[in-house]
Amino acid sequence: MPDHSITLKKGRRAADQEDKVHNRWHPDLKPIVEISPGDEIRLECIGYDDYQLKDTDSVEDVKKLDLSRVHPITGPIAVRGAQPGDFLVAEILNIEPLSGVGYSAIIPEIGGLLKDIYPEPFKSAWHMKNGNKFAVSRHIPGVTVPAMPHPGVIGTAPSAALLKEWHRRESPLYDEGKAYGPSPETALPSKAEIAKESARTVPARENWGNVDIKDLTLGSKLFIPVLVKGGHLSVGDLHFAQGDGEVTWNAIEMDGKITLRIGLWKGGHAKYQSTWPIYQPGWIRPQFSRVLTFAGLCVENGKQYYLDATVATRQALINTISFIRKLGYTGPQAYTILSVCGMQMKIFGIVDVPNAGVGVDLPLDIFDKSRLAKVEDLLSHIR
Amino acid sequence: MPDHSITLKKGRRAADQEDKVHNRWHPDLKPIVEISPGDEIRLECIGYDDYQLKDTDSVEDVKKLDLSRVHPITGPIAVRGAQPGDFLVAEILNIEPLSGVGYSAIIPEIGGLLKDIYPEPFKSAWHMKNGNKFAVSRHIPGVTVPAMPHPGVIGTAPSAALLKEWHRRESPLYDEGKAYGPSPETALPSKAEIAKESARTVPARENWGNVDIKDLTLGSKLFIPVLVKGGHLSVGDLHFAQGDGEVTWNAIEMDGKITLRIGLWKGGHAKYQSTWPIYQPGWIRPQFSRVLTFAGLCVENGKQYYLDATVATRQALINTISFIRKLGYTGPQAYTILSVCGMQMKIFGIVDVPNAGVGVDLPLDIFDKSRLAKVEDLLSHIR
Amino acid sequence: MPDHSITLKKGRRAADQEDKVHNRWHPDLKPIVEISPGDEIRLECIGYDDYQLKDTDSVEDVKKLDLSRVHPITGPIAVRGAQPGDFLVAEILNIEPLSGVGYSAIIPEIGGLLKDIYPEPFKSAWHMKNGNKFAVSRHIPGVTVPAMPHPGVIGTAPSAALLKEWHRRESPLYDEGKAYGPSPETALPSKAEIAKESARTVPARENWGNVDIKDLTLGSKLFIPVLVKGGHLSVGDLHFAQGDGEVTWNAIEMDGKITLRIGLWKGGHAKYQSTWPIYQPGWIRPQFSRVLTFAGLCVENGKQYYLDATVATRQALINTISFIRKLGYTGPQAYTILSVCGMQMKIFGIVDVPNAGVGVDLPLDIFDKSRLAKVEDLLSHIR
Amino acid sequence: MPDHSITLKKGRRAADQEDKVHNRWHPDLKPIVEISPGDEIRLECIGYDDYQLKDTDSVEDVKKLDLSRVHPITGPIAVRGAQPGDFLVAEILNIEPLSGVGYSAIIPEIGGLLKDIYPEPFKSAWHMKNGNKFAVSRHIPGVTVPAMPHPGVIGTAPSAALLKEWHRRESPLYDEGKAYGPSPETALPSKAEIAKESARTVPARENWGNVDIKDLTLGSKLFIPVLVKGGHLSVGDLHFAQGDGEVTWNAIEMDGKITLRIGLWKGGHAKYQSTWPIYQPGWIRPQFSRVLTFAGLCVENGKQYYLDATVATRQALINTISFIRKLGYTGPQAYTILSVCGMQMKIFGIVDVPNAGVGVDLPLDIFDKSRLAKVEDLLSHIR
Repeated sequence: MPDHSITLKKGRRAADQEDKVHNRWHPDLKPIVEISPGDEIRLECIGYDDYQLKDTDSVEDVKKLDLSRVHPITGPIAVRGAQPGDFLVAEILNIEPLSGVGYSAIIPEIGGLLKDIYPEPFKSAWHMKNGNKFAVSRHIPGVTVPAMPHPGVIGTAPSAALLKEWHRRESPLYDEGKAYGPSPETALPSKAEIAKESARTVPARENWGNVDIKDLTLGSKLFIPVLVKGGHLSVGDLHFAQGDGEVTWNAIEMDGKITLRIGLWKGGHAKYQSTWPIYQPGWIRPQFSRVLTFAGLCVENGKQYYLDATVATRQALINTISFIRKLGYTGPQAYTILSVCGMQMKIFGIVDVPNAGVGVDLPLDIFDKSRLAKVEDLLSHIR
Repeated sequence: MPDHSITLKKGRRAADQEDKVHNRWHPDLKPIVEISPGDEIRLECIGYDDYQLKDTDSVEDVKKLDLSRVHPITGPIAVRGAQPGDFLVAEILNIEPLSGVGYSAIIPEIGGLLKDIYPEPFKSAWHMKNGNKFAVSRHIPGVTVPAMPHPGVIGTAPSAALLKEWHRRESPLYDEGKAYGPSPETALPSKAEIAKESARTVPARENWGNVDIKDLTLGSKLFIPVLVKGGHLSVGDLHFAQGDGEVTWNAIEMDGKITLRIGLWKGGHAKYQSTWPIYQPGWIRPQFSRVLTFAGLCVENGKQYYLDATVATRQALINTISFIRKLGYTGPQAYTILSVCGMQMKIFGIVDVPNAGVGVDLPLDIFDKSRLAKVEDLLSHIR
Repeated sequence: MPDHSITLKKGRRAADQEDKVHNRWHPDLKPIVEISPGDEIRLECIGYDDYQLKDTDSVEDVKKLDLSRVHPITGPIAVRGAQPGDFLVAEILNIEPLSGVGYSAIIPEIGGLLKDIYPEPFKSAWHMKNGNKFAVSRHIPGVTVPAMPHPGVIGTAPSAALLKEWHRRESPLYDEGKAYGPSPETALPSKAEIAKESARTVPARENWGNVDIKDLTLGSKLFIPVLVKGGHLSVGDLHFAQGDGEVTWNAIEMDGKITLRIGLWKGGHAKYQSTWPIYQPGWIRPQFSRVLTFAGLCVENGKQYYLDATVATRQALINTISFIRKLGYTGPQAYTILSVCGMQMKIFGIVDVPNAGVGVDLPLDIFDKSRLAKVEDLLSHIR
Repeated sequence: MPDHSITLKKGRRAADQEDKVHNRWHPDLKPIVEISPGDEIRLECIGYDDYQLKDTDSVEDVKKLDLSRVHPITGPIAVRGAQPGDFLVAEILNIEPLSGVGYSAIIPEIGGLLKDIYPEPFKSAWHMKNGNKFAVSRHIPGVTVPAMPHPGVIGTAPSAALLKEWHRRESPLYDEGKAYGPSPETALPSKAEIAKESARTVPARENWGNVDIKDLTLGSKLFIPVLVKGGHLSVGDLHFAQGDGEVTWNAIEMDGKITLRIGLWKGGHAKYQSTWPIYQPGWIRPQFSRVLTFAGLCVENGKQYYLDATVATRQALINTISFIRKLGYTGPQAYTILSVCGMQMKIFGIVDVPNAGVGVDLPLDIFDKSRLAKVEDLLSHIR
């Protein structure tokens, strides 16, 4: 048994969880538990959608999704002795589903990186099976995704100064809808000042937060900076599996529980002074046997972009989707597959002007043999 | 012995190689050899610098580098029966140094992705040793880079229409110096019309070209589209080793020879219609035992960028360099290490507005034990 | 949900399980379920010890262990259409603990390969933690074993002729205690003729059986011959983790449940005619980062053996145990660690007379950092 | 350049190499070079056959092979300051062919582990190609073996006491032909006392010697005990590639050169007291994508053996050969493939009386696609 365990009311939204769950970053949140360095703690977590998505074949829930309730995260956890300048060293010990159903949606309001191409709502419900070792979806038959669970969101409370800085730099983008300003009405905690001042959890920032790194599987070690006394670590947005970049904006999103061992490295952050995350990737995850790589460069619709890795990513995705469609999938299915399947996305070109280049390493193991048979001509040319 | 072998005059610049080497893309280049599908061919190649860099401790050669001579590439190779709509299936069978000396330079005129931070010229000369299995540099002591050779440039001749399209889309960037227009005076072949019309080799494009993909090691299979009758494949810019993105603009650049097996898949390109490269990565390359990952988000100097993976890449590099400096390296040394050492660069965030996120997987195996001892406090927290 | 599910009475011995569990091989056992090719089936299984071992610090249970009750296995499963000459193609989809406690014992009556050196009873109780992803034991502190679950026993019913053959060839060893003859008194099913004729499950044989192959983790594909109509597959002796060879005679032994997908390859066995197992190893298992290898040759106590891989194995184990003791473990602890930790055991020499050679690849990841610090002098010489 | 380089006369037998090459172990051999701890040294080596085998299609050379000339090894190398109780820490930095032709023979006088089944002489000549990255043989078409070079023999001089002990324990086997006694007539050095007293190099022993470990590829670190003042390390019997166990008695055997870095760990052997080799495996070697495993148990021709891993190995080989023959090979070809192809041989059963079990992990990557097409029915069942 872990040293600490935080449980939630089953299937109930964040607002009903008696302040164990919050959905904004703020230095003044009250810890729900205090632990000692070296302790193990297990936390139940609500999925990113706050139980708004349903296991149906309809996309009405996707259309009506209230995104201001994203992400319900569990915490904060205070760590005895933690002071700014320290690192929390978090080891991922376990992640498991609660309900055993996950979702991956294409949400028109958000859309992901290919929103313009796939503007329509699409939802795939994924059922974990075989002891949560694999997930399958009736909405995307012929694909079996092995578990590689990781937390989408894990982060510490920002200092008051850092919070202010976030608003300063992001607020110019609020009006264009390119960043999310505070939405006090759905903020948790709902206390007025906090709701008004707190930051949305959508982007990753200096406190980690919504990093969505698929390599944070079991055994990974995370160096997370302490920015307020006690550290105040929160976790949520658990993913059953994901492809690099979570390109539709959705992994296989699930409610679940996560177990962490939280160490404290006094003075570590002060010494290494890293602005952004440092970690050792996990060592317990599936090992795919064969991959094919599909590239993209930053040219789109005849337009030349300049060292734009984001456009190159779009092109790499489009190139890969074109292949996946040859296996008998629709565009939205293929796009979703890329967002959930453990694919790896590499930047290979970032200096050869004007073209940035990105490659998608697609694992073939996730597809049924009968699907792969449709591209046997191509496969006959590889190992 | 391969079926075909193209040799060059030792140590002589491209202009002296009797039309076996060219440095521009054009559909009308005359093939230097014709081969049959399934043949193996070995080609000697000049380094990207066209023998302008020297094995000295001075950076005068870097300052004077004439970049318009980049890249001297060997070819074209015509493949019997190849027609537009086909794929050449190229297998990388071997790559080896010729002179055994390679260079990695920070060139002020170019600068790479962190040009603003490292504006000064820097040059590291790398000597291949132990049968070309490793490279070391007196300019960056304490690092040993294992061989993972690959071609920086490999590509087919563009059709006339595609060449025209390249100029159309890239020419708006010429004046800002964000793309390279024709430089007829140093073009090879030097025939007037070709020199004037041909495209520079700097960026990768639909014909592959300067892809700089470090995973194209031995055993990789490349699906390269045929765009003119015969395919007209050319190769060069060999790298002894590289990190993803070749972030300073230089891998360990070398003169060398490459052996390929060239298959022909009739109608493959017409069927799969991929605009951008498809390949199976190589299986013969070093396997690093331990990596640490350093992330970056698209915030720089207090400015918030919007889903800008390029800025995120910059930040990830800066974060990694900060760590490498703790091992006792200068900034230019650390920046160079990232460009040559086999690091892997992943896009982990591309949808969580406004922050894109990129991670650098740094292999610890390349550093001497005495260097790693300087960060023993950090290493004591990982596996 | 799997297509079929066989449940047992919780914590109750095989004799109380109403014929769902047997512990002998015989062609005439009545199937407990019939499935169709392609079906998934989940089976609960009793540990090899038939619930004789207890989670205590005493070894009284080890001393009194009735080995004739080994192994309780669940089945048989009949597969529609299966005929001799076919292969069952079993895919391992999931394995999980039931009680969450496992045991690894050194049993004096059996002793394993180093019985003479470690004749005393020793028991380590292992508790699965973190969602059954790791196991730890208060009897062997400082070791954390990641899950790599696999079935110790999986096999089909032998034909009557094959059963007879087994007795013929093994019976000469019965009297020396080098093989186990029938023990009718504890046989299940207890029906007299079957109890008398049936074969013990201890060794692997042509029907697979107690193969104890640690690589049969999730995703592995097993080609198991059909020897009687319907195949009659049975499974049990689940292991949470094991080292190659299961050298003490005990892995981390557990009660648990296993999910399989059972395909039928008509005529496969007739075509390939393999006497012994063929399989593709699993792809979902931990990836250790660093190993050290310890060898052994077939010389013992000054005596030279002739190409004896078994003595070489003993020597390799002794050599590895000597190292593990430097980490602060007793001999029985070290011996147990080898039997449970995922080590890999290779035959490197089998022809260079007179010495056979065996190597043990020991993963260092299983040991706490504080243990590894004790051999820092050695580790400072490796990567 | 390495600090030291030992060259040989090209293509000339050991007896013509002016005492740089010896073929027996003895404490009194005079070093040919003295180096300092930390130095790199490159040594040219004659193949195990002492240039008796020829690149022909005849087996006359195999039949006439004088095995008493095995193994010509280069050395000894004295290390300054090395004393009994120390470890030499040898790092493998490079191995390359000299002539570029290697041999793998089935020698009737020796025969390997399946001598009884394949009693006839067979020889395959292998030509290294593509810069020595691959080897192919006209005698075994359809197989391409990637380089994984390693030294068959590497060892230190035995002390006088240890040499005496070797003779004591091995001499009882001399008469049966189960071990090799001194053959003074072909011994090198030929000095009478040494020739008479020295030990043959065929088996590995406490001084390492003919370990034939295929994992000693580039980057491996070997802890070799110092048994006489100066250590007196010798190396030879280079292999281009091998399968575990070198089951026919021949890898792809070649003349070549090897580069080592030799460190000295004072007191290391005294502290760790290992009788047998300890090493960290190399990290620069091919990574196969798909393997199939073929098992064997210790039953042969109806006879039951008792925990006999050697018989189990035989059975595993026979099982694998049966599969390889389905790809269109003869028995001797298939047997040779196993001895050279990088297969891995695991002991999975060594305690489940009476059956020992061994598995052969066969890499499918070495076979041409046209060969694998012959077993497409089997491959269609795996990933």
